[in-house]
Amino acid sequence: MLTRRMLSSAAHVAKNTPDHGRVLTVDKLSPAILNAEYAVRGELVIRAGKLESEGRKIIYCNIGNPHQLGQKPITFFRQVLAATQYPELISSSGLAEDAKARAAEYLANIPGGTGAYSHSQGIPIVRKQVADFITARDKVAAKADPEEIFLTDGASPGIQRVLSLLIDPTLPFSSKAATGKARKHGILIPIPQYPLYSASITLLGGAQVGYELDEERGWELSIDSMKKQVTAARAQGIEPRAIVVINPGNPTGQCLSAQNVAEVINFAEQEGLVVLADEVYQVNTYRADRPFVSFKAEAVKNKSHVELFSFHSVSKGVLGECGRRGGYFECYNIDGAVKEQLYKLASVSLCSNVDGQIMTGLMVQPPKKGDPSFAQYNAEVSELYASLARRAKTLTAALDGLHGMSCNFTEGALYAFPQVMLPAKAVAAAKAAGKNPDTFYCLQMLEETGICVVPGSGFGQKNGTFHFRTTILPQESVMSQVVEKIANFHNSFIKKYE
Amino acid sequence: MLTRRMLSSAAHVAKNTPDHGRVLTVDKLSPAILNAEYAVRGELVIRAGKLESEGRKIIYCNIGNPHQLGQKPITFFRQVLAATQYPELISSSGLAEDAKARAAEYLANIPGGTGAYSHSQGIPIVRKQVADFITARDKVAAKADPEEIFLTDGASPGIQRVLSLLIDPTLPFSSKAATGKARKHGILIPIPQYPLYSASITLLGGAQVGYELDEERGWELSIDSMKKQVTAARAQGIEPRAIVVINPGNPTGQCLSAQNVAEVINFAEQEGLVVLADEVYQVNTYRADRPFVSFKAEAVKNKSHVELFSFHSVSKGVLGECGRRGGYFECYNIDGAVKEQLYKLASVSLCSNVDGQIMTGLMVQPPKKGDPSFAQYNAEVSELYASLARRAKTLTAALDGLHGMSCNFTEGALYAFPQVMLPAKAVAAAKAAGKNPDTFYCLQMLEETGICVVPGSGFGQKNGTFHFRTTILPQESVMSQVVEKIANFHNSFIKKYE
Repeated sequence: MLTRRMLSSAAHVAKNTPDHGRVLTVDKLSPAILNAEYAVRGELVIRAGKLESEGRKIIYCNIGNPHQLGQKPITFFRQVLAATQYPELISSSGLAEDAKARAAEYLANIPGGTGAYSHSQGIPIVRKQVADFITARDKVAAKADPEEIFLTDGASPGIQRVLSLLIDPTLPFSSKAATGKARKHGILIPIPQYPLYSASITLLGGAQVGYELDEERGWELSIDSMKKQVTAARAQGIEPRAIVVINPGNPTGQCLSAQNVAEVINFAEQEGLVVLADEVYQVNTYRADRPFVSFKAEAVKNKSHVELFSFHSVSKGVLGECGRRGGYFECYNIDGAVKEQLYKLASVSLCSNVDGQIMTGLMVQPPKKGDPSFAQYNAEVSELYASLARRAKTLTAALDGLHGMSCNFTEGALYAFPQVMLPAKAVAAAKAAGKNPDTFYCLQMLEETGICVVPGSGFGQKNGTFHFRTTILPQESVMSQVVEKIANFHNSFIKKYE
Repeated sequence: MLTRRMLSSAAHVAKNTPDHGRVLTVDKLSPAILNAEYAVRGELVIRAGKLESEGRKIIYCNIGNPHQLGQKPITFFRQVLAATQYPELISSSGLAEDAKARAAEYLANIPGGTGAYSHSQGIPIVRKQVADFITARDKVAAKADPEEIFLTDGASPGIQRVLSLLIDPTLPFSSKAATGKARKHGILIPIPQYPLYSASITLLGGAQVGYELDEERGWELSIDSMKKQVTAARAQGIEPRAIVVINPGNPTGQCLSAQNVAEVINFAEQEGLVVLADEVYQVNTYRADRPFVSFKAEAVKNKSHVELFSFHSVSKGVLGECGRRGGYFECYNIDGAVKEQLYKLASVSLCSNVDGQIMTGLMVQPPKKGDPSFAQYNAEVSELYASLARRAKTLTAALDGLHGMSCNFTEGALYAFPQVMLPAKAVAAAKAAGKNPDTFYCLQMLEETGICVVPGSGFGQKNGTFHFRTTILPQESVMSQVVEKIANFHNSFIKKYE
């Protein structure tokens, strides 16, 4: 995705300086670094930045970054955050009483306030709030335990840290591998997937083992397909160690049924795989008959011995507080000595940022009925829920209705992932231009409409199919324009190459 | 440092659950993870947490965490931060006019405000403020360039990212190594060093090449000693790729002269080493005739072709905003294609936290003479400077005056690193207890005084010598107690074992 040529032309990269026989040159970097790809902020975005710097208006649909597209923060959360940072506000008149009380509660429980390094695993009171939230959410027999929670700078660094436990980059070379067979640690990831996974697995020196989601059945996942992939990987000398499930799906938007979740847990336990449950979109569901079901809840209900990490974030949901970098992961049935290593790794980085930790606490314990801020909070959140559901419907229905495009309904998360049936001539033209056909299509969309989406090849897609990912995040006042612009572009593109 | 036994007894680690033939167990983790050590939050701190949970009063001198020990945040910085988070405050009466204006300026220049992911390299206006600060600080011909600045979640993640470019963990096993000789990428680090370096180098699969600082000459660094270490490393099949210099020194507190800085640059250029200049304590200097001189300034002045990364942070200086996790690094003479890879790695993690980025902007562009907040800012900062200088002097003079202890004056940074002449009987008693002698000493100090320091073995020390690191951060009202308690403990310890 991120080709050197594109990057060199980008505004953000400093001009190269003349070479004096440098020590640090790209040919000396490890292949793992060079081979890592991250499309969500790759070629398309760099081109968009260029166009924007030339005065073009760009609508960024490449990334789930709600505030960038005008989503407003939740008032209560920001009042608490401001008061924890400037405690004099607690005695001012401008903030709600419950916001001030919550800020005072945090400050009384965080030694040194927001300016001090916290406990490396995360502020105890926030970890307790997270555990209480999980207990209330899952309604299962076992209570969640604050000691099983690690607070992180968003979900991504937690995912990367857990993956680093599961992949030993020296495995292919180590003495254990003296069998003559190439060996690598493998991680099962959905195809399509969120490219944090592919990039991190590559950076860590592991192997991706992709299991395809079935687009024709609403991106359903199939245990049979997973089994086949595990068997095939083992035959190639790959040791699968974990399976990643993104639920609700990114970029695919499906919500798993409780039965599906239980099947994955059972499969993982049988195959000796750790489960990484990426549940950052757990609040973003748009189909009443398909509510979010957590892996933790199903694991407890089924008395499973599966080893599970589940991830959550303040960046999505109704907060969209991406810039804060807050999140957590919960450990379920993880070996105590392994958690010690996780603690040690966290301590090397000292702690995650305290504002992000506080925002995590607020996310899981928002105002309750009867609190002074509840009415406003409820109004803000309800309107946003309803609007996101409308946007998901408007966008996917419109895209699905186009000639040469099909699009599943977005049941959850913040994206649509339509398939584009590219005419053979378009594929040939892309090849002649040295581009993936989907990248070729998305670049033209960007040039003609100013809308920045991400090509499906950045996420992985069934061979011979072409997709793009767009967020459902443009404000409703803009959404009809976005739909119209994409439709007009698409129709003329198809006409041109058909 | 961080032994499994100690960790298991710690309050923060959840009890182990019974083993059902787990997939993820410590014996399956990579040796790199198992071997990494981080003493600053290791055994001593875990024991201190235990004592605290039993009701003991602990004074944490193990870590440069100023607010934890009562240092107050700078009012102007917190006002701006609060207003960027809750922009309604910009029209309130409780904040200074220039704080509100600065908040408005940031919000006008950050698309989506503090809740949106920012540019992966860092918010452009903040990078410009950093560049302007460097230009003003260094007073050299060349202006600093915002495109050479990367904003980070504190200095640590930036250091780890740069180290990841310099160490290929598969080198010892790769085809390049088919010479029959063991090969590893090596990083020169001072002895004593800050254990982020040793831990990160181990985690990345590299080799530490230590160069000793000369305690008898005020922790002077010697180019001759560096040369010998590089030669010896090469003879062992280690490829030294970079040198780390911490200036002012952590844990050692020395400030390098301009001549010394120039010598290191020259040495690195000759030996083909990249320089990592850890300059997070650049503002914390306490000797008028030894001002801070940056590596960047000397490199420019000497028209050097050295490749240099320099690191700064909001956690130290007069801010002490550790919990914010803000910082930056500047690239000097780094290959453009390598910077593209740095950008790509930053984009996989999306961005550093926006509050930390804003705090970085505030650190480098505080109120100026004539601004409404200047008088208050100046008073807060001047008092803090003077107090830190007094505390450095009080503490080091007192420790140096003890029988069986010597301590260099703290010229810079936030620590003292006294040497303890442990009697042979104490060393024997430590060995009998299965402890490093310095750990044995520090644990007894903790039990008897409630003061938590870090044993010198966590930083590295000349063989046969024993030290501990303590911060100079206890408030002045507490410092005399701290000094007295350490003195009483030390005298009775020496008496007991002499």
